[in-house]
Amino acid sequence: MAVTTESEVRIKAKKAKMAAPQLAVLDTATKNRALKLMGEALLDRKSEIMEANRKDLEEGRSKGMSRALLDRLEQNDNRIKGMVEGLEQVVALPDPIGEILEEFTRPNGLKVKKIRVPMGVIAIVFESRPNVTVDSAGLCLKSGNVTILRGGSDAIHSNAAIVRVITEAANRAGVPENAIQLIENTDRGLVKELLTARGLIDLVIPRGGAGLIKMVVETATIPVIETGEGVCHTYIESTADPKMAEEIVFNAKTQRPSVCNAIETLLVDRSVAEKVLPPILKRLQGAGVEIRGDSIVQKLAQNVKPASEEDWKTEYLALILSVKTVGGVDEAIEHINTYGTKHSEAIITKNPAAEKKFREQVDASSVYVNASTRFTDGFEFGLGAEIGISTQKLHARGPMGLRELTSYKYLIEGTGQVRP
Amino acid sequence: MAVTTESEVRIKAKKAKMAAPQLAVLDTATKNRALKLMGEALLDRKSEIMEANRKDLEEGRSKGMSRALLDRLEQNDNRIKGMVEGLEQVVALPDPIGEILEEFTRPNGLKVKKIRVPMGVIAIVFESRPNVTVDSAGLCLKSGNVTILRGGSDAIHSNAAIVRVITEAANRAGVPENAIQLIENTDRGLVKELLTARGLIDLVIPRGGAGLIKMVVETATIPVIETGEGVCHTYIESTADPKMAEEIVFNAKTQRPSVCNAIETLLVDRSVAEKVLPPILKRLQGAGVEIRGDSIVQKLAQNVKPASEEDWKTEYLALILSVKTVGGVDEAIEHINTYGTKHSEAIITKNPAAEKKFREQVDASSVYVNASTRFTDGFEFGLGAEIGISTQKLHARGPMGLRELTSYKYLIEGTGQVRP
Repeated sequence: MAVTTESEVRIKAKKAKMAAPQLAVLDTATKNRALKLMGEALLDRKSEIMEANRKDLEEGRSKGMSRALLDRLEQNDNRIKGMVEGLEQVVALPDPIGEILEEFTRPNGLKVKKIRVPMGVIAIVFESRPNVTVDSAGLCLKSGNVTILRGGSDAIHSNAAIVRVITEAANRAGVPENAIQLIENTDRGLVKELLTARGLIDLVIPRGGAGLIKMVVETATIPVIETGEGVCHTYIESTADPKMAEEIVFNAKTQRPSVCNAIETLLVDRSVAEKVLPPILKRLQGAGVEIRGDSIVQKLAQNVKPASEEDWKTEYLALILSVKTVGGVDEAIEHINTYGTKHSEAIITKNPAAEKKFREQVDASSVYVNASTRFTDGFEFGLGAEIGISTQKLHARGPMGLRELTSYKYLIEGTGQVRP
Repeated sequence: MAVTTESEVRIKAKKAKMAAPQLAVLDTATKNRALKLMGEALLDRKSEIMEANRKDLEEGRSKGMSRALLDRLEQNDNRIKGMVEGLEQVVALPDPIGEILEEFTRPNGLKVKKIRVPMGVIAIVFESRPNVTVDSAGLCLKSGNVTILRGGSDAIHSNAAIVRVITEAANRAGVPENAIQLIENTDRGLVKELLTARGLIDLVIPRGGAGLIKMVVETATIPVIETGEGVCHTYIESTADPKMAEEIVFNAKTQRPSVCNAIETLLVDRSVAEKVLPPILKRLQGAGVEIRGDSIVQKLAQNVKPASEEDWKTEYLALILSVKTVGGVDEAIEHINTYGTKHSEAIITKNPAAEKKFREQVDASSVYVNASTRFTDGFEFGLGAEIGISTQKLHARGPMGLRELTSYKYLIEGTGQVRP
């Protein structure tokens, strides 16, 4: 049993590595044709996917899976249409591969080109949303990468059906075998094997909650890009326009609370808290937001629970907001750099000095002045589709589109040069 | 004891994180003045450094350290001069921080700038060469990063003296406290603590041999850039000019065998081996190079030892060369992609089709056509000084200069925009 278990990851990772050089030189037309056929196949073979999905749903129900999780898992016409639209968007994006990033000739006559190339083999480890399968495979294919997918066991039938459908379509378009692979054995031990496949896999991107990301980071010996955990803040500085502050905070918390660029903590300059906060808190509470605040905040509205140290660290992903008063921009920056996850941070201000300090010193992928943090997104930044939002500083930061799935290499052309 | 041990890394890493926002906004003039003063201080306080170095050397001798290691450890006027020259070169390089990489306005009026920022806190884990201390601190300072240095215990007195001298000079120039820090406790357990200081350290770069790199990669939960391991190849294709091949192979193996961009394995097209190899092997053997070859190679020269599977994987860093005959460019590429370390790879050829295949499919930071692999180097590529040569694909590949020590962030300026 253990031997078989080890085999699936090793065998697939080796095949992936063998396929990578072929993917790297695949022309744009073939990749686009494959993406289109993948979309068509998802629609043509919808019943096959729905049947597999029903198995997952049945197993989920019999295991007592929560309504929310069952909802994430469930496929329907609209969701499959959404996947197809996602693939069409990727077709429309420019192919990043082969771009010459720099080009120069050295005094000894060596011609050096720095050229954009795929990463090679990218592993995606995700939870139970089957759409991540199509989405990741599409972005990786367009950027010339082999994908190894490892989804949650709850969605295994759905994922297997989807991968079968899209790989068959991709192969018909001329994409090499093994370009998209799913680890079908959902044994947890296999994840470790995947995450330590040095020499075979070039990068792993976890797509899921904080627990998944932590597990991947702690286990992996291959390079990781951390994505998506967002303990985001908005800081209302003393000169902020109160109405603008209210609109931005309300939007950033309530427009879609379950996503990573929604805010979890509101910071307010103590000198204006009494004036600015009450209408904001009232409006938030009116929209069903639970407020947890420090001692000052607790006096400015009813039903404010005390915020604990734990609150400052928590990504609620729900209609809960922690609120803290601070002595000024320095304290706001310090709080954010201590508790934030380097995702998206905003200041509302009319004071150029405070704005400058905040912009320069807040350590986050996206720093906003007088706008909602909800804009941190591949589409909103004009990158097109995104594979995730990086919260680390190595390689890629913020929304990751196709270019962020690439590396580069130096090509050096000589006429016999040797080093003196 | 364990408590004290834990403290040094945590305390210094926390101070480093606190200092990072100040380093990030340090102006170019201050950084350059600091680099100059650091150089002057190294010369002024040479005796202090030499005295500390003598302690290390004495301890090394009494521990029975090898002549080669003692040589790497020993400081003298020339080596200190070398460090100072290194700092002067960094002064001359352009400051990468603040560069606007992209700038655009979205349809909703949001102004987005993608701007180059420092990584933050960079840890350098290295072995016994004290010059790495100055070199790393200088490059990190110029790129706005806080440095945490952790050198080998053999050089601890030298490193401590050097760090004391350069940090005092940097502080005099206006560089904030804690910008350059040395972990003085050389307990090995501390390395693990350093490598798992998530949230405090943004990046670790190991500078040393394969064993050190492996340890760092396997232990770290913070992002790593792997550098410097080079199992590099040269492939003599069937159309290669034999004289050019000889010159390039001789240079790549013997000009400086102890460095990562020297070659370890020579691949030769089987159809021309009999003609091309004998003069090359003779010349190499004449220069003291030990040849290990496959069965064909063993017949083409005297004193050729059989090469084992282990040889194809080994970075000799010495006057040893493994030689293998292959059936053509595909087999050469497969060998390189199996045994190489993604560092520097060369083909000698006049055949455009073979050249194209090799360039496109060899997975390495630097791919050469008709030139010696010895050119993979920050100075040779025109980057100025380098902190290492990355052999991974995430973030930076090949020689890493100042830009490769930076990240970016998005600054978004609004007028109250919220997401609809």
